[in-house]
Amino acid sequence: MAANTNGAPPLTVSPLAVSLGDPAGVGPELFAQAWAVRHEEGLAPFFAVGGADVLKAAARSRGIDLPVVRIAAPHEAAEVFAEALPVLGDEDAQARLGQPDRSGAALALHSLTHATQFALSGAASAVVTGPIAKSKLAEVGFTQPGQTEFLADACGVAHGDAVMMLAGPNLRTVPLTVHVALSQVPALVTRELIESKARIVARALARDFGLSPARIAITGLNPHAGEDGRMGREEIETIAPAIAALAAEGLAVTGPHPADALFAAHERDRFDVALCMYHDQALVPIKTLDFDAGVNVTLGLPIVRTSPDHGTAFGIAGRNVASAGATIAAIRMAGQCAARRLSPETTA
Amino acid sequence: MAANTNGAPPLTVSPLAVSLGDPAGVGPELFAQAWAVRHEEGLAPFFAVGGADVLKAAARSRGIDLPVVRIAAPHEAAEVFAEALPVLGDEDAQARLGQPDRSGAALALHSLTHATQFALSGAASAVVTGPIAKSKLAEVGFTQPGQTEFLADACGVAHGDAVMMLAGPNLRTVPLTVHVALSQVPALVTRELIESKARIVARALARDFGLSPARIAITGLNPHAGEDGRMGREEIETIAPAIAALAAEGLAVTGPHPADALFAAHERDRFDVALCMYHDQALVPIKTLDFDAGVNVTLGLPIVRTSPDHGTAFGIAGRNVASAGATIAAIRMAGQCAARRLSPETTA
Repeated sequence: MAANTNGAPPLTVSPLAVSLGDPAGVGPELFAQAWAVRHEEGLAPFFAVGGADVLKAAARSRGIDLPVVRIAAPHEAAEVFAEALPVLGDEDAQARLGQPDRSGAALALHSLTHATQFALSGAASAVVTGPIAKSKLAEVGFTQPGQTEFLADACGVAHGDAVMMLAGPNLRTVPLTVHVALSQVPALVTRELIESKARIVARALARDFGLSPARIAITGLNPHAGEDGRMGREEIETIAPAIAALAAEGLAVTGPHPADALFAAHERDRFDVALCMYHDQALVPIKTLDFDAGVNVTLGLPIVRTSPDHGTAFGIAGRNVASAGATIAAIRMAGQCAARRLSPETTA
Repeated sequence: MAANTNGAPPLTVSPLAVSLGDPAGVGPELFAQAWAVRHEEGLAPFFAVGGADVLKAAARSRGIDLPVVRIAAPHEAAEVFAEALPVLGDEDAQARLGQPDRSGAALALHSLTHATQFALSGAASAVVTGPIAKSKLAEVGFTQPGQTEFLADACGVAHGDAVMMLAGPNLRTVPLTVHVALSQVPALVTRELIESKARIVARALARDFGLSPARIAITGLNPHAGEDGRMGREEIETIAPAIAALAAEGLAVTGPHPADALFAAHERDRFDVALCMYHDQALVPIKTLDFDAGVNVTLGLPIVRTSPDHGTAFGIAGRNVASAGATIAAIRMAGQCAARRLSPETTA
C-alpha cells in the first residue's frame, strides 16, 4: 500500500464518468442496463453527465425502472451508486429514439465535454463514452472526425499519438491506419508510423494493462506478408526494418505476420496485441469473434478512455434488442485500467 | 429417382481421387488419418494416386498401421475402401518428412496430374488435392502459380473463371482478387470482375451446394464501405453499380457491406457466401473462425475440386500434431458436391 502519512483519507479510485452518446441512439439504454447489472458484473461506480430524463426513458424501453439521483460533484457518485444511477448536471433532452435531432446532439456534446474534463481533473478516474453520430454533432460545434480526436484535443495530445485499440475477450488489435481509403494505405505505412504507434502501444499496455513487455505481433500489408517480395515489397522495405528497430529498443515485437493466419485460435495466445496495417485487417477479426463485447480503448492519453465498439444503432434504439455486452465490457475495462494506474507498482 | 430402363447398373457416384501433395509435407499423413476415421466421419470412398510407401510411412508417424491395396482402375476403389486405402499406380518416393526434394515434387506433380485426369474422365467423381510447395514443383515442370490455375488449365478453363472459395463450418468467402500486392487491389476491382465472379459463384453454389439462388453478400473495399464516399469512391462508382446489375439479372446479391461487421455471428446467417474484394478480407474471417476446418473449393470448373485450406506445413510434418480437420472436411465436401451433381434434380 502507498504510505499515507498526512492524515488524508486513503487513496480510492474516483468514479468513472460516462458520456451519454446520442440520446436518440442506444447509448443511454445500454448504460441504464449496465447499471441494472452492476452487482452481478462487479462494475466500478460510474455517473452520467446530464440526461436524467433521457436515461429514465431509455431504461423504461428495456423494462428497467431506473432510479436516478442527481449529484453535485463526482465524489458523491460512489455513495449513491448502489441504489441509483448518479447523474451530474441538469442538462437534458426530449429525445425521440431513432430520430436524432439538434437538441440531442447538444446534450451529447455537453456530456462528452464535461465527462472528459472530470477525467482530466482527476475527479473521475476514466471516461466511458457512448456512441455519437458525428454528422449530427458537427451541427452543434463538434469539429473533429471522431471522439478519439476530440479526446486527443481535449488532452493536448496530437491526433496521431491517440491510438485506437480494439479489445475483446479473445483478442486486442490496433489499426496503424484507420479511416482512410484503402488505396491510400500503402503510402501511409511508413517505418516512422509503425515505430511511433508500437511505442505508444507498448507504454500503454504496460501502464494500463500490466503487460510489460507487451508481446506485439505486427502484420504484413500484403497477402502472406508479401511472400518474400513476390506480392508487394512493403514488408521487406518498411515493416521488417521497423520491427528490427523496435526489437533493438527492447520491445517484444514479432512479424511481419501473414494476417490471415494470425488470428486463428492457436495463434492468439502468442501475442498480447496485434498491430495491423489498416482498418479492416484489425477490425474484421475482432468483430468476427467478439461483436457484442468489443471495447474501443484510446491509448496514449493522460486519461483512461474506453467506449463500446459500436455505433448509435438508431434503427434498434428503444426496442430492447441492443446488446449491452460491449458497454459493460467498456465500463469494466475502464475501471480496471484506472485501478492499475493507481496501484503502488505504477505510482511508485 | 432417374429412370433406369436399359438394364445398366444403377448410377453410383465414382470414388474421389486424392492427390498426395508434397510427400515431405503433411498431406499424406492427413489423408491416412482421414482414411482411419472414414467410418466415424462417413466419408465417401477415395483412392490415392501413387505414393503407397509414402502413405504407409506417413501413417506410421501418426501411429496408424495403414493397410494399402493397389488398384488398377478407379472403379475398384469402392470395394477396397472399407478395409484398406486404395492406391492407384506404382509411383512413389523416399520422402524425408520436412525436407522436400525433387523426387517428392515429381511424385506430387504426377499424383496431381493423374488425379485430375480421372476426375475429368468421370472415373473419379472429384479430386481432393493435398498441399504442395509451388517453388519445388516448379523445378519439375509445374508452370502455374498454384494448383487452382493448374486445374483450370487441365480443364481448359480461363484462370479468371476458376474461382477460389473458402468454406468452413461457419462461413463461405470468395476473394475477388487473390495473390496480388494490396497496392494493386483498388485498380483491379472492376464492375466486370465483380459481375463475372458473382455469376460463377451463383452458378456453382446452385449446382454443387444446392443453394439457388445463393445469397451473395458483397463487401466494400474501404473502411465502413467508404461511408458514402468519405473514405474512397469505389463503392459508389464500381461496386454498387455491379450489385445493381447483378440484382437486375436475378442474382440474390446485397451490399456493398462494411467488411468489419459482416462476419459477426448474427450476420453470418444472412448470406450463403461473401464475395470479398481482396485476399485478407476473405481469408481473415475464415481462418479466425475455422482454422482447422477450412476447405478451399474451386468454383467454375467442369470437375469438383476441393483441398484443405492450409499449406505443406513442412515444419510439423511427421510429428503427429497437424490437424486432419480440414482434410476430412475437404473429402466430405467433395463427396457431397459430387453427389449433388449426380442427383436427379441436377441431371434432369
